[in-house]
Amino acid sequence: MAVIDGRTWFEHLNAGECWRLLGITPVGRIGVLVDSAPEIYPVNYTVDRDTIVFRTAPGQKLRGLDRSPSVCFQIDGIDPEARTGWSVLVKGRAADVTNPDELEHLRQLPLEYWNVGDRPNWIRIRPAEVTGRRVHRGRA
Amino acid sequence: MAVIDGRTWFEHLNAGECWRLLGITPVGRIGVLVDSAPEIYPVNYTVDRDTIVFRTAPGQKLRGLDRSPSVCFQIDGIDPEARTGWSVLVKGRAADVTNPDELEHLRQLPLEYWNVGDRPNWIRIRPAEVTGRRVHRGRA
Repeated sequence: MAVIDGRTWFEHLNAGECWRLLGITPVGRIGVLVDSAPEIYPVNYTVDRDTIVFRTAPGQKLRGLDRSPSVCFQIDGIDPEARTGWSVLVKGRAADVTNPDELEHLRQLPLEYWNVGDRPNWIRIRPAEVTGRRVHRGRA
Repeated sequence: MAVIDGRTWFEHLNAGECWRLLGITPVGRIGVLVDSAPEIYPVNYTVDRDTIVFRTAPGQKLRGLDRSPSVCFQIDGIDPEARTGWSVLVKGRAADVTNPDELEHLRQLPLEYWNVGDRPNWIRIRPAEVTGRRVHRGRA
């Protein structure tokens, strides 16, 4: 059953629906702290046993993750014609994957990757909280 | 002329192109700090004299802005079929708009708004930095 917030008119998505959407969306956005301010970057990612994994290069994103492992990961689906949409926010901690067996496992995952640049690092986000919401078009 | 980063294969977008994309995209994402961790929320927004403005309710987003005015604002255009996309990141400071003349001006702007919930607060982000990039599909 949809739970609608009477003040904001957002429908709250349950955890199962959030993970279903995380499983079918090809691009998400990592939110990291860089010099105490948030930055947002799109990444190709995949879901591995209730965690989010993605590849990255040793640049700005990774620098932020080293210093501030508290991150968020966001996906959304916006429909400009219907003027509606949903979003899912994962809050958790990010860590560089360095264990060779784990890296070998990650390299077997079906991670679509659009960019040809070198991305030698794998990052895993372990969620502490997963929330989602959908714009509910009630009466104006 | 497109400037391609030889390591990451990202094409850097110039400021004019970033502002053009900011002017035609209906939904962006605000990145805020809440309890020292980043959170990302989609918002309808508009551009007003080289600043980003949007409406909000006195909830979590605004709470984060009060405490940590350093924010970011992000838009992107993802094309899953072509497996390409672009993104623009605005870094700056957010402030509640309280001046009555300024509020009257903002209420006249053509801000599309998809949700029926009450959003009495207006927030303005004054950019300190605007950057953009596009995935360049070079040789693998």
